[in-house]
Amino acid sequence: MPVAAIPPLIIDCDPGVDDAHALFAAIGARQRLGLEAVTVVAGNVGLGFTRANALRIRDATGLDAAALPIHAGCPAPLTGGTTDAADIHGQDGLDGAGLPPSRGDVEPAHAVTFLIERLRRAAAQGRPVRLVTLGPLTNLAAALILAPDIVDGLLEVRAMVGSAARGNITSAAEFNAFVDPEALDRVAAALDVPDDVAPRLHVYGLTLTHTVCADAAEIARYAALGTVPGRAIAGMLGAYLSRHRTPPLPGMGGAPADAAPLHDPCVIGHLLAPDAVAGVDGRMTVVLRGPARGQTLASFGDGAPAAGRARDVRVRWMVDGDAAALMAALRDAVADCDPV
Amino acid sequence: MPVAAIPPLIIDCDPGVDDAHALFAAIGARQRLGLEAVTVVAGNVGLGFTRANALRIRDATGLDAAALPIHAGCPAPLTGGTTDAADIHGQDGLDGAGLPPSRGDVEPAHAVTFLIERLRRAAAQGRPVRLVTLGPLTNLAAALILAPDIVDGLLEVRAMVGSAARGNITSAAEFNAFVDPEALDRVAAALDVPDDVAPRLHVYGLTLTHTVCADAAEIARYAALGTVPGRAIAGMLGAYLSRHRTPPLPGMGGAPADAAPLHDPCVIGHLLAPDAVAGVDGRMTVVLRGPARGQTLASFGDGAPAAGRARDVRVRWMVDGDAAALMAALRDAVADCDPV
Amino acid sequence: MPVAAIPPLIIDCDPGVDDAHALFAAIGARQRLGLEAVTVVAGNVGLGFTRANALRIRDATGLDAAALPIHAGCPAPLTGGTTDAADIHGQDGLDGAGLPPSRGDVEPAHAVTFLIERLRRAAAQGRPVRLVTLGPLTNLAAALILAPDIVDGLLEVRAMVGSAARGNITSAAEFNAFVDPEALDRVAAALDVPDDVAPRLHVYGLTLTHTVCADAAEIARYAALGTVPGRAIAGMLGAYLSRHRTPPLPGMGGAPADAAPLHDPCVIGHLLAPDAVAGVDGRMTVVLRGPARGQTLASFGDGAPAAGRARDVRVRWMVDGDAAALMAALRDAVADCDPV
Amino acid sequence: MPVAAIPPLIIDCDPGVDDAHALFAAIGARQRLGLEAVTVVAGNVGLGFTRANALRIRDATGLDAAALPIHAGCPAPLTGGTTDAADIHGQDGLDGAGLPPSRGDVEPAHAVTFLIERLRRAAAQGRPVRLVTLGPLTNLAAALILAPDIVDGLLEVRAMVGSAARGNITSAAEFNAFVDPEALDRVAAALDVPDDVAPRLHVYGLTLTHTVCADAAEIARYAALGTVPGRAIAGMLGAYLSRHRTPPLPGMGGAPADAAPLHDPCVIGHLLAPDAVAGVDGRMTVVLRGPARGQTLASFGDGAPAAGRARDVRVRWMVDGDAAALMAALRDAVADCDPV
Ligand SMILES: [Ca+2]
Ligand SMILES: [Ca+2]
Ligand SMILES: [Ca+2]
Ligand SMILES: [Ca+2]
Repeated sequence: MPVAAIPPLIIDCDPGVDDAHALFAAIGARQRLGLEAVTVVAGNVGLGFTRANALRIRDATGLDAAALPIHAGCPAPLTGGTTDAADIHGQDGLDGAGLPPSRGDVEPAHAVTFLIERLRRAAAQGRPVRLVTLGPLTNLAAALILAPDIVDGLLEVRAMVGSAARGNITSAAEFNAFVDPEALDRVAAALDVPDDVAPRLHVYGLTLTHTVCADAAEIARYAALGTVPGRAIAGMLGAYLSRHRTPPLPGMGGAPADAAPLHDPCVIGHLLAPDAVAGVDGRMTVVLRGPARGQTLASFGDGAPAAGRARDVRVRWMVDGDAAALMAALRDAVADCDPV
Repeated sequence: MPVAAIPPLIIDCDPGVDDAHALFAAIGARQRLGLEAVTVVAGNVGLGFTRANALRIRDATGLDAAALPIHAGCPAPLTGGTTDAADIHGQDGLDGAGLPPSRGDVEPAHAVTFLIERLRRAAAQGRPVRLVTLGPLTNLAAALILAPDIVDGLLEVRAMVGSAARGNITSAAEFNAFVDPEALDRVAAALDVPDDVAPRLHVYGLTLTHTVCADAAEIARYAALGTVPGRAIAGMLGAYLSRHRTPPLPGMGGAPADAAPLHDPCVIGHLLAPDAVAGVDGRMTVVLRGPARGQTLASFGDGAPAAGRARDVRVRWMVDGDAAALMAALRDAVADCDPV
Repeated sequence: MPVAAIPPLIIDCDPGVDDAHALFAAIGARQRLGLEAVTVVAGNVGLGFTRANALRIRDATGLDAAALPIHAGCPAPLTGGTTDAADIHGQDGLDGAGLPPSRGDVEPAHAVTFLIERLRRAAAQGRPVRLVTLGPLTNLAAALILAPDIVDGLLEVRAMVGSAARGNITSAAEFNAFVDPEALDRVAAALDVPDDVAPRLHVYGLTLTHTVCADAAEIARYAALGTVPGRAIAGMLGAYLSRHRTPPLPGMGGAPADAAPLHDPCVIGHLLAPDAVAGVDGRMTVVLRGPARGQTLASFGDGAPAAGRARDVRVRWMVDGDAAALMAALRDAVADCDPV
Repeated sequence: MPVAAIPPLIIDCDPGVDDAHALFAAIGARQRLGLEAVTVVAGNVGLGFTRANALRIRDATGLDAAALPIHAGCPAPLTGGTTDAADIHGQDGLDGAGLPPSRGDVEPAHAVTFLIERLRRAAAQGRPVRLVTLGPLTNLAAALILAPDIVDGLLEVRAMVGSAARGNITSAAEFNAFVDPEALDRVAAALDVPDDVAPRLHVYGLTLTHTVCADAAEIARYAALGTVPGRAIAGMLGAYLSRHRTPPLPGMGGAPADAAPLHDPCVIGHLLAPDAVAGVDGRMTVVLRGPARGQTLASFGDGAPAAGRARDVRVRWMVDGDAAALMAALRDAVADCDPV
């Protein structure tokens, strides 16, 4: 499509090993993808780390604040509690990356303020923004609390979040949904559409991401790129694999034990390779209370309903992916990062 | 094993097409299985129908009340609400069976009273009972409410209930668990054991039963038995298949669209063919509130915990089955029913 | 009214100091009240104690099993958990009563079985029973679980339970409601009636009972009776007062600090002095979950609704009492107990 | 106290009849009270109306944006739902006030952005702000979501919210708490302090405000002031009384049927007459789910605990007021408004 037709892209994330991987790929393909800005939120690690990590990643690609502004957002979920995943991503969130501290800084505007202003401008210009979220959805939910009208400036939200079957941080819930289920529920409700309209919330959950896994051979390919981003990704995935072996779930499939599911990169991979993921339209209910807190109940056109009186909103479930095509697209994009 | 070592067997059920199938097989093998009595509960259809159906099934095998006493139990779940599955099993619960009304009657004692007396006797005699439940667990839960000491008379409970992944009546919940989640929670808590003791509650959920499906060929084999039970099963499965095609769930496996999952028979099949099902010890939390009501959150030895503050009790998850072996064992047992 | 018109009375209780007081008064007036039987349940103390205490109280009035049969019921709430109030009522539940162990025993039939049989007989005879409940409502709820048809044998249920404002065991919940809210909810739902029918569930909650308090002078009047029941009541209330001083709640009224609220006796007092309590018809919702668990939300004809999606059932709130008249009626009835 | 010692005062409100009354009094005494700014939120009526009403009230006192800046905040509660009280306050929220549309406008900065910047400045200067909230607490909660550090700039929050006993919009919940319980819970948690520290959240609930009621005589006194604010208050209270007669709650006290409870003015009245209200330190739990949603469970030093696992935070319950002193202080302050 002509450049003029590319919607502006903002990535909201909580780097995090897989966020870093996704960001390197998005930066490598930033012109094709229309990448304009990055916002960060607390999630895999605290906001101090996710902010610092976003800056370290930008440095590693040779970009500066003018080329890719970064805004820091909310330091805790809507309810004020906290959960992190430092056991998976390492103390600073980028274990194994070998990236130095950043020389740069984030923009003065809070991510929520930035999102409100940018999306209002998008609505005014009739050129709505594509938002990719790779962490808890606190920033977008907070922006909607202050200014619900910003939905008019959103083309769509593609979120790495949830699962149509089992979870990972609990047996019911995926990490990003579990950390701030109220935020996910708020965003989903704001983006709801009637049944005859294409869903505006695209859910890239564990059902998809557990089928897109990097093994030792894939890690070696990144190392072989010989670039700072390539080596960083190889180092992080290696550290990840050494720490986190997905246990086999009897009778339930899942990722192989010696490969790392590439959660966040799946969303960027799909933008790079539009045919590599198939979705199915359905509905999602976010469980807010009880032992299943953070679960994303999934229903499909002809399946059992996601019962109950909670909000059941229309989404597109991304459930089938061509893992090889996604991984190749990601690798190529990372290879396109400018040499530092 | 020697006959003396066979534990007494009681089957609590809500017939229902698949209960009928299971009962025919259990009656055919009643001496091998130590089958003593049947109790019925509201579930697939109302108690008036489940009681009548249990009697019709007994008649079809030529047995009488002396050979197989039947006790009627609770007409509604613990909380008093009701849900049925007449859309699946037909108005009277045995659509397609072609069985005439019964000439017999149930015993005067309420199923709950019977269970309390029988289990107390079992405890006093040091010969605990094996209980198989094929419907909502209301009867056993009510017995535990009146007399919690009866756990001492229970060897184990093998329950067709729940799912370690998705549900069927809602995207989260399996039917038996959904109809009376408070009962399942009560029973599970009463049967909880420490981590170093073998679980006393064995859960045969959809994860297993969706892999044991009867297709047209299997139905033909039942018809070919030429007996009343064989023709009844063939008729019911045929009607079931004509009414209920399991929809394909994108990216999630599940039963083939043109075959009927044999939920309840799986438990009896496993008693008949002990090597045909593999279980894994873990824990289960029953979701009582919210949109996931009736869900059975599953955790395994090395998987993600079934998080939250609810009761998380030790169970054995039956997750892998040899469908051919189970179906053959069931068929052989049905063939052994006495000619009427 | 003529004796023939007196409905049969059954008292379900968990003695307990105030249950004992209520039982002595009811036994003293047993012919006027039509008292037939007593059932006991776990509550203030465990079932072992409440059963023993009911027998000790019967002994102290010179009655035997033929004159007043006692049936033991459920040893724990519907969900299986337990809460007691031994800190208020003493280790054995009758601290200060000075009553010896009983020589008698309870009937062989479980209280739930007894209630089912008696209420079915009442329905068949067209002579429905008045049930007074002075403890958690587990027994009646369990009977309804086994046999919902028994509502036809119930004239009305008069329950000491709940509060139209603040609670006592928590700031939201009264003790009997808190111990088994699922039972109260089940009973209330079973007794619900349309808005143009007189409520069948009469709620004697803290709003009433906190206005009917015994002080030192009232205690002295019981001691002056010179009978075993009189001295037992004086001893129990004295011990109660020495242990439990109701704290003043700023700005919220409530019982005086040096007087004991006569919770359970209020119901019997009202039967003895029908003009001494005024009720108002309204609705009640039982809170089952969260920090307000066990609360009984009250709405009146023209007040704010008891909002939410929970069961909101029609009840009569007993809210205004003539404390002096109630206490005089109770004292007179206790004085009428036969000398032992 | 010397002027230098007066903490800066910000009033967050949702005018609303009683907010208008409170604002007129606060503006009349603005120098004594240190009033700096007003923020508005959706509540009694939608944000469009509450914003317009705050401007109309400012106009009626002859002030302009320089003297009293007004910032518009969130148009809906944190979860995105809405509830209003237009049945009480009239279609535009100020029924009966007779105030013309405003000539002025609100500040460009969102109330949440303003609060964050002002409170951070307060923290930096060591001169923390006193915040009075007279509506749902959405604005402050949203500010805490974006920037939890702003608690350091808060001296205290005095909130008209909740009840230590019954509610008004439901039998359990007061209006401001019911509209956004998640916001109240978030604010309360952020302001929690250890038991040996004076509470920072002062709760002016229905327990107090139902004892401070304006009758016809009080309304006449406002009319007699002969000023625009006086006539507006008289007009609004008259319209309120004609529309909303508090029903008598049997056995439960409450406001007289022919007088209007002055909810919001109580907080300002207390600032004007510090001895006219007595508080008691205790704890508060906000009920977020179920039929009691929005209830504020109250416990006091020596009362029953606000049970459960929810957040139970330290607050000061304002429970006893000198109604005459409060009403006199309010009237005097309104009389001090500059003539327009
Ligand atoms: Ca992430
Ligand atoms: Ca069944
Ligand atoms: Ca009692
Ligand atoms: Ca207000």
